[in-house]
Amino acid sequence: MTGKDVAKILEKIRSQKPLVHNITNFVVMNYTANALLACGASPVMAHAYNEVQEMTAIANALVINIGTLENDWIHSMILAAGIANKKGIPVILDPVGAGATTLRTEAALKILRTGTVSVTRGNASEILALADANTQTKGVDALHSVNDAIDIAKMIANTYSLVVAITGPTDIITNGKEIIKVHNGHKLMSYVTGTGCTATALTGAFCAVDNDYMKATAGALAYFGVAGELAAKKALAPGSFMIRLLDELYSMTSLELEQYAKIEGQ
Amino acid sequence: MTGKDVAKILEKIRSQKPLVHNITNFVVMNYTANALLACGASPVMAHAYNEVQEMTAIANALVINIGTLENDWIHSMILAAGIANKKGIPVILDPVGAGATTLRTEAALKILRTGTVSVTRGNASEILALADANTQTKGVDALHSVNDAIDIAKMIANTYSLVVAITGPTDIITNGKEIIKVHNGHKLMSYVTGTGCTATALTGAFCAVDNDYMKATAGALAYFGVAGELAAKKALAPGSFMIRLLDELYSMTSLELEQYAKIEGQ
Amino acid sequence: MTGKDVAKILEKIRSQKPLVHNITNFVVMNYTANALLACGASPVMAHAYNEVQEMTAIANALVINIGTLENDWIHSMILAAGIANKKGIPVILDPVGAGATTLRTEAALKILRTGTVSVTRGNASEILALADANTQTKGVDALHSVNDAIDIAKMIANTYSLVVAITGPTDIITNGKEIIKVHNGHKLMSYVTGTGCTATALTGAFCAVDNDYMKATAGALAYFGVAGELAAKKALAPGSFMIRLLDELYSMTSLELEQYAKIEGQ
Repeated sequence: MTGKDVAKILEKIRSQKPLVHNITNFVVMNYTANALLACGASPVMAHAYNEVQEMTAIANALVINIGTLENDWIHSMILAAGIANKKGIPVILDPVGAGATTLRTEAALKILRTGTVSVTRGNASEILALADANTQTKGVDALHSVNDAIDIAKMIANTYSLVVAITGPTDIITNGKEIIKVHNGHKLMSYVTGTGCTATALTGAFCAVDNDYMKATAGALAYFGVAGELAAKKALAPGSFMIRLLDELYSMTSLELEQYAKIEGQ
Repeated sequence: MTGKDVAKILEKIRSQKPLVHNITNFVVMNYTANALLACGASPVMAHAYNEVQEMTAIANALVINIGTLENDWIHSMILAAGIANKKGIPVILDPVGAGATTLRTEAALKILRTGTVSVTRGNASEILALADANTQTKGVDALHSVNDAIDIAKMIANTYSLVVAITGPTDIITNGKEIIKVHNGHKLMSYVTGTGCTATALTGAFCAVDNDYMKATAGALAYFGVAGELAAKKALAPGSFMIRLLDELYSMTSLELEQYAKIEGQ
Repeated sequence: MTGKDVAKILEKIRSQKPLVHNITNFVVMNYTANALLACGASPVMAHAYNEVQEMTAIANALVINIGTLENDWIHSMILAAGIANKKGIPVILDPVGAGATTLRTEAALKILRTGTVSVTRGNASEILALADANTQTKGVDALHSVNDAIDIAKMIANTYSLVVAITGPTDIITNGKEIIKVHNGHKLMSYVTGTGCTATALTGAFCAVDNDYMKATAGALAYFGVAGELAAKKALAPGSFMIRLLDELYSMTSLELEQYAKIEGQ
């Protein structure tokens, strides 16, 4: 996969303006909506059990994010994911905080077990929490190398028949067989709340316009990583950086994407 | 109505610092609070059924916004609107997403039917969703010209005895008889989430200090549109733009407002 | 207490990256999370009754904030505060809007009466609302001088055995006996929503790494005030200012803190 492939997907988003339905956490609702707009997509946030069906029915992708979770929301997420599945649109799951509390871990697993999820993206410890109990008990040790992370990601991808993305200094994307690695991003991204959630939301936009969810996911992560790199050239501290990051999502040209994307595999 | 009239209302906000009680959606709570502060008003956000009465009782305007709606919130909105009415302060309704889901459309209509709303502001499709069933079924076709939009806005204004504002490239404000048009704004505003909601919140601040709700609404929209134009002179992408927009709300002088406001009618 | 003392605490935050668990209001969740990250701490936001115990159990401080309050949240706050207490980590309470509605005032008092709170920070009228009925009825008159504010803060500190901070042009911090005054800050801070809440969240980070909660609180307020002063040198309006403020929290050197902190007492 090349930067040129990513640029083509981005151009489709900018021309088609897909509607991305987000059931997401309170912390990042505003920032992820702005990131989706900057990218060229059209975001809508709605979580009430008695309206998610209708909202998903008019959407081109569904993004589920379990940060600041409450019980009621889980029902809405599962209901919406079912509708998305019937309609054939992608369902992206961000298991924020899986592994930190039982509520989060179990909610993520419950949603995965419905078989409706197309892509899940998290950091290494969140994704590890989705693995089976045997693997989990090894904790951080289970992930002491990139190869270990790849093995666990593949296992989860195969268990639930979906694409798994582990983001970090190197992003790993797998469908259970093949692997794509993305080497973009900047350390200032970890000083802005919700950059992980934003990567997931952008994955929703990319999958909305491209049926190859593995490539679409890798494309979203490369695009977001390049935006981070470009923003860091102009902003040296996290406040200015998070604003520039939105600017770059909007302003980035296909040429810049082709030039800076560092994608390995497929 | 002239820019000078708008500037006078803005000066009243800056000197009186009206308290604007918002029952609004999660996505825009932060941004609209900051916009109200930048404008010179004093925002408070509160939605719990067991406190909205007391909060509205000390407020100078009530802003109701049905984005990210839940059933419980509708009760709080109606309760607060009743208090506002008894007290004689303006009630501004933003029917976010009316037309997209039954929950939103019915909630907006339920609130309108209490007869407590002073002003409602939305985009063309949201306002169309508030029209009667006959008009609605014509859908977007019902609004294929500015004159059609005016007819529908007038009809709704007369049905509920309030001021209706349809915002877009040209903003239309009507009390059912007269029309004011505002020609300010910038296309980057559509790349920032919650700019519509912000227009509504600012309308709350303007109506809080001026009893002529039609002029106050037009004034708020002209002021916000001019801020957008001034911000776009300095910021070329949505991240920087949304920050500059807050700056301009704060920094704009009466002279700038008089110079740039493009208001037609009344 | 000197700027050098504050700088030492800040360095501890930056090296230890304490986890600060926030049960806070919707308006400020994003901004306070970003402020904590910029400061060097690690924020997590979680409020569900069935997960707060586990989240507090892995945290280094708990911050409770009653803005946009709902009944259910009070139970979560009290549950989490109990866990924090058993674990020996600080509990910081921000009584946002106490005095404005019965729900807020009673919630703040209910939480205080559990005896679990280590520090409470508010503006003068919020703190006054925590005083006994006799003092409260005198209203604003009760606080017509800095000395009156000090007397009330001391009384509350002694009643609940905690540190009380009243923030304003001069911040007053007391443990019921001694007093520290902080003279930092900038008027633009009052044009950004949630700066009070941010001061409280940062107090959580400072208390997480220093057991002397009175000094830690004064340190957090001096640090935040200096950041405001530095931000105001570069940004003249509230949008740009709120972004620069995050930048300064991140970029501020120990030397700057030592040079600009204006702390009196202890």
